[in-house]
Amino acid sequence: MSEDLKQVVQDFNAYLERIQAIGYAASMVHFDMSTGAPKGGNESRAKRLGVLSSEWFTLYTSKEMGEFLRILGEHKDELSDVAYRTYWLVNRNYQKNIKIPKEFDREMSETTTMANIHWEDAKRAGDFAAFAPWLEKNIDLAKRYANYLNPGAATRQDMTPYDVLLDEYEPGMTMDILDEYFAKLRERIVPLLKRITDKNEALDTAFMNRKVPVETQRKLSELMMDKIGYNRDCGQLRESEHPFSISFGKYDCRITTHYHEEEFVSNIFSVLHECGHAMYEQNKMDEIADTVLDFGCSNGIHESQSRFYENIIGRSMAFWDNCFDEMKAVLGSDFDDMTKEGFFRAINMTSPTLIRIEADELTYSLHIMIRYELEKLIFNGSADTKDLPRLWNEKVKEYLGIDVPNDKLGVLQDVHWSDASFGSFPSYSLGSAYAAQFYYAMKKEIDIDSSLANGDVKAITAWLADKVHKFGSMRRPEELLVNATGEKFNPDYYTRYLEEKYTKIYGI
Amino acid sequence: MSEDLKQVVQDFNAYLERIQAIGYAASMVHFDMSTGAPKGGNESRAKRLGVLSSEWFTLYTSKEMGEFLRILGEHKDELSDVAYRTYWLVNRNYQKNIKIPKEFDREMSETTTMANIHWEDAKRAGDFAAFAPWLEKNIDLAKRYANYLNPGAATRQDMTPYDVLLDEYEPGMTMDILDEYFAKLRERIVPLLKRITDKNEALDTAFMNRKVPVETQRKLSELMMDKIGYNRDCGQLRESEHPFSISFGKYDCRITTHYHEEEFVSNIFSVLHECGHAMYEQNKMDEIADTVLDFGCSNGIHESQSRFYENIIGRSMAFWDNCFDEMKAVLGSDFDDMTKEGFFRAINMTSPTLIRIEADELTYSLHIMIRYELEKLIFNGSADTKDLPRLWNEKVKEYLGIDVPNDKLGVLQDVHWSDASFGSFPSYSLGSAYAAQFYYAMKKEIDIDSSLANGDVKAITAWLADKVHKFGSMRRPEELLVNATGEKFNPDYYTRYLEEKYTKIYGI
Repeated sequence: MSEDLKQVVQDFNAYLERIQAIGYAASMVHFDMSTGAPKGGNESRAKRLGVLSSEWFTLYTSKEMGEFLRILGEHKDELSDVAYRTYWLVNRNYQKNIKIPKEFDREMSETTTMANIHWEDAKRAGDFAAFAPWLEKNIDLAKRYANYLNPGAATRQDMTPYDVLLDEYEPGMTMDILDEYFAKLRERIVPLLKRITDKNEALDTAFMNRKVPVETQRKLSELMMDKIGYNRDCGQLRESEHPFSISFGKYDCRITTHYHEEEFVSNIFSVLHECGHAMYEQNKMDEIADTVLDFGCSNGIHESQSRFYENIIGRSMAFWDNCFDEMKAVLGSDFDDMTKEGFFRAINMTSPTLIRIEADELTYSLHIMIRYELEKLIFNGSADTKDLPRLWNEKVKEYLGIDVPNDKLGVLQDVHWSDASFGSFPSYSLGSAYAAQFYYAMKKEIDIDSSLANGDVKAITAWLADKVHKFGSMRRPEELLVNATGEKFNPDYYTRYLEEKYTKIYGI
Repeated sequence: MSEDLKQVVQDFNAYLERIQAIGYAASMVHFDMSTGAPKGGNESRAKRLGVLSSEWFTLYTSKEMGEFLRILGEHKDELSDVAYRTYWLVNRNYQKNIKIPKEFDREMSETTTMANIHWEDAKRAGDFAAFAPWLEKNIDLAKRYANYLNPGAATRQDMTPYDVLLDEYEPGMTMDILDEYFAKLRERIVPLLKRITDKNEALDTAFMNRKVPVETQRKLSELMMDKIGYNRDCGQLRESEHPFSISFGKYDCRITTHYHEEEFVSNIFSVLHECGHAMYEQNKMDEIADTVLDFGCSNGIHESQSRFYENIIGRSMAFWDNCFDEMKAVLGSDFDDMTKEGFFRAINMTSPTLIRIEADELTYSLHIMIRYELEKLIFNGSADTKDLPRLWNEKVKEYLGIDVPNDKLGVLQDVHWSDASFGSFPSYSLGSAYAAQFYYAMKKEIDIDSSLANGDVKAITAWLADKVHKFGSMRRPEELLVNATGEKFNPDYYTRYLEEKYTKIYGI
């Protein structure tokens, strides 16, 4: 790099720090809002966030930014790896941001805010018709958004508007890949689930609903965080309505949980899940700490890490071989009769249910598949909005074998369509599928079960850190998969994992 | 107002919102930092705060800001009250900020950061000599700072550099006023304290140190917040190392406390004190909510409100006539033998002690007086830095009648000199004195004792809200005093209050 270019890189980084400081502060306000901020301040808070967002956007789309990117683009071959990836990532966002007119951004924000309010009311009342006009507005907005990003999409075969939306949440993801993926799930998992439900096995899991006071559950949270290896000096556990994780850079990655007194297991798996997200953020290489690359690379890869720690580790017998007695000691004498085997069966019980976020490991992706199929129908124009509840219910019957009693427990259950975040659902399922692909690659190098039984999660984390975590946003999802597993996304691993696991557990 | 001027006011307010959003976010980061943020993120957090502070400063001192203020200044007689006060406040800060060179600001920040580290070490070791060179640097910085703000101060009789510093914390406050104030304290309170200590009364207060679990103390916090009338929908109680309050605007005013298991009273008065700060912020008129006027007007007035709720209300017999039984019910059977009278005497016990922040209501201001006298000697050049420990110890002996065993418990105890915040101490004591002046004015209109005995703090708060709280930063401290009490600051009320209270309690 020439001295001149070095200076440009330095000035560019200083400029990015201004954007990042505003983003950091806005995240802090969001975190505060979700962890107990006084309701009275909601309106002021929304106003402040609006101003911060506008400051962020102004800096991100400024002439000065354009000029930095122009110069760096001309010299991209001379840049260091980190400098190049910084340019690459910022340029991608810049090219996107400058395509969105400010007025559209405001229209989007106003409409989705209103749509969200109407969705909440409609959901409460189970009244889809009340939400339908707002859903239509949101669909229209999403189509226009896709058109701004990729004006040719509507008329081209290679990238449809829905592809544009998918790419927003999972860079590189397309309908072609997802069609193949979900076809495989339909073909392999739907019949597997049917074989299990047909067996109609009766399990006594009443102990799972015994009351466990919040104070005791807090101790379980600590046990889980320490067992899984979450670095609490660079993190924090808080409480919120719905569990989530949030990163303020690799040295400050926080998680939240929610305690249900009569469902202590809910907290255990929330903590393991959110620790997975947070450990991904904590294990990035020091070189990219606090830079724009200091974030996980996509929703799908992020979810792959949370699902790895929650399901592949957290629902394995080997993990509980190590932890069960310690958990039981915390739970106390009320749980004297609970056996390790009974607990293991209970946390791996599968049965079709109506609500996605409460679904078990096997049925979860089927919920996503239904959402994906509906979104495809919406965006290729073959479904009327008014038919969506019926289509939802039909698919639930077909894949899960159960009846949907009302739209509250059906098509209205999830917030995403009220936010116009079409295309985001698939990444939840891709996470589990990526996790399985990582799992089989890891198994070639590490004896996972004996590591877990010995309480050595570190060896597993070291593998993930080396292949995935350390890169932050320096690699695209596909690059990470190839780097870690030697091949592109391959859905076979996921169906194989589910089949091996559930045929063994259910003895079918 | 002409249409043109209206437009300027509107644009000015929109410009201010950008500054306020950054300030709001930075406060949120500070709040987070003091309420459990992971240590691992300290460095990144400091860096982000530095960038936010620089963004804030750039916007506040920009040409655009100067131009707004020039136009508004030319039309100030045409502005509405709120618009005029906004202009007045922003202009005051602007005129100050543009006088401080950016390099000086950085030097100040770097030197005080280092001085703070050296002070911590020196305090721990009780080694004043190790801190002395940094204290000298800080004194020099403070003198230069005063000189930037008021270049003539060093050579003028009417406003010395120390007056400039005092005005930073308490607008309008001067050494002339403080000399008279502290002279009165010396004359009236020092002998009063001596009469009490000479009486040498033995009180059994061992029950005050009985262990009260944190969970029980949390319930006491709730009782106190509700009794005092703190609006928890627009506020929140959290825990931190040292109790504090912080306002994010009138609809979000938070407090923190710290639980000491063997000193349950500490939390009670921390909560009442911080509620006083927060209620001042909550009771501002709606018209100024979220504007730059949506903050208390000075350190001294702020402290007057916290001290009013903590001491004048919280340590009165009438307040406990209403609350004592409820508090006792929360404390449980361990406190069966505690009587209301015994509790009242215990929370109003006075005895000279070494540490300012642990001092009781009567002796507190004497600690401040000593600090004030030393700061005067520092800034008029009649004390060598090396003599400060000796001077401190002599004054403690003279006013409090006790010996200082080492500098850790003496001159090194407080952080303020390591931050170069000379001139800030007096406002702590002024708060109590203002509170007493408000108290006697209020007494003419309200039967305070029967309101409290009836659990009706609202009547008292309504008086304070109407005379003080509602104005936020629209009035200077002196204007508020005259508005509420009909006269300027008059220290007689404070000495009268202390004499009446303590002669009665101690029967002297």
